[in-house]
Amino acid sequence: MNKNDIKNMYIPPLDKTIGKEVSDYLDTLTKPKGSLGRLEELAIELAEMTGQRFPVITPPGAIIFAADHGITTEGISAFPKEVTTQMTLNFLEGGAAMNVFCRQINAKMAIVDVGVTDDISHDQLISRKIRRGTHNFLHEDAMTEAEVHECLSIGCEEADQMIASGAKTLIIGEVGIGNTTSASALLASMLGIPVQEITGPGTGLNPERVVHKQQIIEQAIGARQPNRDDAIDILKKVGGFEITAMVGAMLTAAKKRIPIIVDGFICTVAALLATKISSGTSDYMIAGHHSKEPGHQKALEQLGKKPILDMQMRLGEGTGAAVAFPVIEAATKVLNEMATFSEAGVSEKDKEPL
Amino acid sequence: MNKNDIKNMYIPPLDKTIGKEVSDYLDTLTKPKGSLGRLEELAIELAEMTGQRFPVITPPGAIIFAADHGITTEGISAFPKEVTTQMTLNFLEGGAAMNVFCRQINAKMAIVDVGVTDDISHDQLISRKIRRGTHNFLHEDAMTEAEVHECLSIGCEEADQMIASGAKTLIIGEVGIGNTTSASALLASMLGIPVQEITGPGTGLNPERVVHKQQIIEQAIGARQPNRDDAIDILKKVGGFEITAMVGAMLTAAKKRIPIIVDGFICTVAALLATKISSGTSDYMIAGHHSKEPGHQKALEQLGKKPILDMQMRLGEGTGAAVAFPVIEAATKVLNEMATFSEAGVSEKDKEPL
Repeated sequence: MNKNDIKNMYIPPLDKTIGKEVSDYLDTLTKPKGSLGRLEELAIELAEMTGQRFPVITPPGAIIFAADHGITTEGISAFPKEVTTQMTLNFLEGGAAMNVFCRQINAKMAIVDVGVTDDISHDQLISRKIRRGTHNFLHEDAMTEAEVHECLSIGCEEADQMIASGAKTLIIGEVGIGNTTSASALLASMLGIPVQEITGPGTGLNPERVVHKQQIIEQAIGARQPNRDDAIDILKKVGGFEITAMVGAMLTAAKKRIPIIVDGFICTVAALLATKISSGTSDYMIAGHHSKEPGHQKALEQLGKKPILDMQMRLGEGTGAAVAFPVIEAATKVLNEMATFSEAGVSEKDKEPL
Repeated sequence: MNKNDIKNMYIPPLDKTIGKEVSDYLDTLTKPKGSLGRLEELAIELAEMTGQRFPVITPPGAIIFAADHGITTEGISAFPKEVTTQMTLNFLEGGAAMNVFCRQINAKMAIVDVGVTDDISHDQLISRKIRRGTHNFLHEDAMTEAEVHECLSIGCEEADQMIASGAKTLIIGEVGIGNTTSASALLASMLGIPVQEITGPGTGLNPERVVHKQQIIEQAIGARQPNRDDAIDILKKVGGFEITAMVGAMLTAAKKRIPIIVDGFICTVAALLATKISSGTSDYMIAGHHSKEPGHQKALEQLGKKPILDMQMRLGEGTGAAVAFPVIEAATKVLNEMATFSEAGVSEKDKEPL
């Protein structure tokens, strides 16, 4: 994916005609008008995204991008860097939280190495390693512009692959020790807001170490000077390979009218970057949950999305999106399975006032 | 169920020892401590309720109690009274929202007529009709004390039956035109608070008719004078047959250590009445969702429960509980399926400060 590919990326508009039809149809179903609340809104949104009168979003596809971050040298994470490799293997062996939730929702799952430091050998791993971790963006750009484009392309291709294999919704997760630091730097760069407003404990830093993390991010942004209007420049300077691949995957999903269930902080930052590259991308997004990581609220506001769940989760991986999936699926089932007033012979609301 | 049965109803205490074990075990799983937020709390609560180290809550069982309300004569509902019968048939034919969500979560389902006016003939219907609707409680008590006890017994028996058939969690729903009026009267009687604080549009009254509904409830409470400390007296004077049966079903579930997923306004009022009868009952409850019906917030506060979902739903039937079920199920799957740090060979959090 080069600059021109990005410039020419066409995101189709939502199908508002079908949305209106679905809205009218919902009012014929055996329930008081609007009584299913946000489920009704979701049904309409999913119809507008997919262009289907009776949208189907199963099976979902979950793509987990894994990569390391040079910035971990600065002691910004509560877990040692090797955990990226170890957790990637845990995903491949089926033992991580994300595996549990993906099994629950019958999701197809793909684990993609786009930049883990270690060599990982596993027959289920998709190896698309760009480099063994980004550079330490306190001292130099995280990656080159060519690497940004390569990484976006990988994300697009993996989403393409997942959709070709039958996935009707995408959940895009990540693993990468240090990636809340990169995500905080990306968000601060995009919004031009103080780092302390959006930097949190990540996997579990104590308050002193959160302050240290904030200082590192502040220094890095001062040194790198990302151009806030240019997503590619921001990713190059303070991004991560897994976050960049997530951006690419979202662009492809939107292009193919596949709904994206956005996870927590890191995923929402990737969602904002995708939307910065092509503004229509956010039309295809549903926010799965509200993460406890403090930057997430700001990121959600910026994306203009209200999350489905607020379970005080802060694990990442795509877990919040996966746990929210059945609620979203319920909205599609309302359209597909409920009886109308006339089918069921149920009287409608009183027309007469008292 | 007579007065003595109720007095002697033994609700076992939560198993706090197992709760502590589960809490410790959660910290050994491959995720930052506490990062699954409320899912971890739910896992602990479900272990304490069931007394199981690895609680299993599937399959859920949904019991829908149906009944009519004499108070509908006063024009307090947006839908005509015959809709109770029509919707009961819709449940039996599988076309209601609750059927859709029960199929999604593989719930066993039972539809129980405890007081519908019309005769309903259907091979799937459980007929336990007490009377053809309650009396109009504006002018006389809704039911006799003997009927309250009979109705509680039916609720207990139906819950027993559902649990005997294998249900590991209970969702208790209702259908009954006029039942938000009864529920509002019950709640105002229990809490001794002004009716207008907790009376809302139900299935969709306009603001003028909500005022009329409030006035009717106020007059009725003034005329009936329910004893706020006596759940049986309150049910007798302003209750409904379906709400009373719900109370009985909840008491039995708690007695048998079966978790109850509480639905919206009407169900939460029944939950409060069950807890008034036997205070340990609420230990076995999880609030499924926050309904848009204005009295629900107050009822939830009184019950001391924080809901899982807030989807602006206001349909009743048990739908909010059913849609929340997969989120609660996810908590049990975390315990049953996630790998520990040692199993997965994942390094734990840095012990050293920076």
